[in-house]
Amino acid sequence: MKIALLGYGVVGSGAYKIIAERPDCGLLVKRALVRTMRPGPAEGFLTTDFNDILNDPEIELVAEAMGGLEPAYTYVMAAIRAGKHVVTANKQLVCAHFRELAQAAEEYGVQLRYTASAGGGVPWLYNLLRAKRLDEIEAISGSINGTCNFILGNMHKHKAQLAEVLAEAQRMGYAEADPAADIDGLDQQRKCAISAALAFSALVPEEKVDTAGIRHISAVDIAWAEQRGFVCKLMMHCRRESAGLTAYVEPTLLPAGLPEANLPVRSSIATLHGKYIGRLSFFGAGAGTLPTGMNMMQDAMDIYLGVGEVQNYAEDAQIDNTLAVHPYYVRGEAKLPGVCEQGDGWAITEPMCVSAMHALAREAVQEGRPLFFAGIEEE
Amino acid sequence: MKIALLGYGVVGSGAYKIIAERPDCGLLVKRALVRTMRPGPAEGFLTTDFNDILNDPEIELVAEAMGGLEPAYTYVMAAIRAGKHVVTANKQLVCAHFRELAQAAEEYGVQLRYTASAGGGVPWLYNLLRAKRLDEIEAISGSINGTCNFILGNMHKHKAQLAEVLAEAQRMGYAEADPAADIDGLDQQRKCAISAALAFSALVPEEKVDTAGIRHISAVDIAWAEQRGFVCKLMMHCRRESAGLTAYVEPTLLPAGLPEANLPVRSSIATLHGKYIGRLSFFGAGAGTLPTGMNMMQDAMDIYLGVGEVQNYAEDAQIDNTLAVHPYYVRGEAKLPGVCEQGDGWAITEPMCVSAMHALAREAVQEGRPLFFAGIEEE
Repeated sequence: MKIALLGYGVVGSGAYKIIAERPDCGLLVKRALVRTMRPGPAEGFLTTDFNDILNDPEIELVAEAMGGLEPAYTYVMAAIRAGKHVVTANKQLVCAHFRELAQAAEEYGVQLRYTASAGGGVPWLYNLLRAKRLDEIEAISGSINGTCNFILGNMHKHKAQLAEVLAEAQRMGYAEADPAADIDGLDQQRKCAISAALAFSALVPEEKVDTAGIRHISAVDIAWAEQRGFVCKLMMHCRRESAGLTAYVEPTLLPAGLPEANLPVRSSIATLHGKYIGRLSFFGAGAGTLPTGMNMMQDAMDIYLGVGEVQNYAEDAQIDNTLAVHPYYVRGEAKLPGVCEQGDGWAITEPMCVSAMHALAREAVQEGRPLFFAGIEEE
Repeated sequence: MKIALLGYGVVGSGAYKIIAERPDCGLLVKRALVRTMRPGPAEGFLTTDFNDILNDPEIELVAEAMGGLEPAYTYVMAAIRAGKHVVTANKQLVCAHFRELAQAAEEYGVQLRYTASAGGGVPWLYNLLRAKRLDEIEAISGSINGTCNFILGNMHKHKAQLAEVLAEAQRMGYAEADPAADIDGLDQQRKCAISAALAFSALVPEEKVDTAGIRHISAVDIAWAEQRGFVCKLMMHCRRESAGLTAYVEPTLLPAGLPEANLPVRSSIATLHGKYIGRLSFFGAGAGTLPTGMNMMQDAMDIYLGVGEVQNYAEDAQIDNTLAVHPYYVRGEAKLPGVCEQGDGWAITEPMCVSAMHALAREAVQEGRPLFFAGIEEE
């Protein structure tokens, strides 16, 4: 099957390399779309004109690796309407247009896959969908932002402040020049929304996922955590309760003996809890050119081999984060509803609901006195 | 698709329950073969006569969950020759008859799946095969014997001797009355042979996998390991070297900060290293009625949905465990080729090859002075 790449940067060039080195795999990358012309791996391979791809009847599948909403959305919809299958690693696109994309794919009889949009190289969404064929998913969780895993891992390791470790991550290419999407949790908010939608068969608007990041974490928080036997991770959590779905992203203090607390700093982990299978976890490199390129090309292979189907959900999920209740570690000035222990600038709350804690934190930011908080996970 | 179960014990009844509670999944369990008649979940469901299944043209797939070589082999071959697909969780059968089963499946145009034969509920072999479609597997490893994970985990936790923990495991049903297959590593030897065959596309005779178990471990070994910052696991290891394949099962001392060293005691973990994807790990419940039943029924779903193909390998793998070299912890009397540290009854060897260490240990057993040894894994 001949395919085209939209974008030939980090992920696109990784995908190209994998397929080029495996000439017997059944896939062949014929063209790649770039913004500005440059020399490509073969004559006539790169193009700056999307129509060269759209109007080429040999190209049966388009792999979108541009990122961002536009022109990715316009191109992907045009490809679907031209009867081409689509794979994408673009979580922003999938979150913003899940329903339109799925409906168009059904209408035009093409396949749509986006399992590389959460988890990088970890086959998380693929295995979530496979588990769901026979199991009932009860909860999912994970730590699937590579930048925050790198930052928090190194803050623990080197007793360093966020700013130092972030600068290091930026130097090494693990963090963007503008790190907001990662350190404010927005990247993982989208990954949580997509994962939750697939797990619970209902659309989850990203803005309904209460999200807090690690912008205000300090080395004193890490030191406190270590003294108490915790490791801090930025985690996504989602659980089906009888009254609705909980879904949130927040710094989480994990008991140091949990597997999540003992991963190499550059890995991502995601976990499902099934009614029958129990806990099932997946971890590996959560980002990077080859892992993410691989996941996208595995999606393309699944389409080529006829594995899986388009996921389309009529309903919006009812998110209710008053249903998730646990104690918090809080540093900063806040009117906490109940405190069971406190010290120099910090407090441990009585178990309280996620929506209340996130509301308190948003209020604090608005009043110019940002606080750091982290959910405490019991053993 | 109507299917039949051969065996209605731990795994078979789990598989039945999962399918019965999911009437929309596309599979339906019509019959189950038992040794002695007893009341079943529906009139005419259980049978003691395999011909009731073999001669039923409605039954398109047979799920073998009897264990052992006979009559499992005879029944499975008869089912294949009758044009029925086969799924099995029986590692002994797959190891002993991989080639005949695969050839018969190809010849009769049916599918054969056995991903539940290693890893219990962990979708290990499935993901290994999926990764291999586009990646090159460089190494695999894992700790996928539930009994040994339970025993070693509890020896660490309670500073107990093997005999006490084993008795507890037997009381709780986590170990067989005759625990030899588990504690001598034979169960994991077979799982290693099957995993290695799939990873490296060549048959691996189980007897070529150098294997040592935990029969001679003592609480003093665990105490020594903990003092040095290690956790002891019974691990399988397999790696492709330029001169051949290494494949062995042995107690392994893992640095305490590795994810493998921080799993819940009842989990199994398996890991692949791909040229492109890097490290990818899978963990969850490695045994039990529902997890293993689930994995077997997921295999049946894959056949129903047309996912994957029969794996058949013409070549035997060239196993050469002189190519795997690392230091060992050894307790007992042995003529070690080089020792870099020793104490009261124990020694740390210079890096030495796996085949030599296993040969020394076999010799020691023959001479009636068994020793305990464990490979030491560097951070």
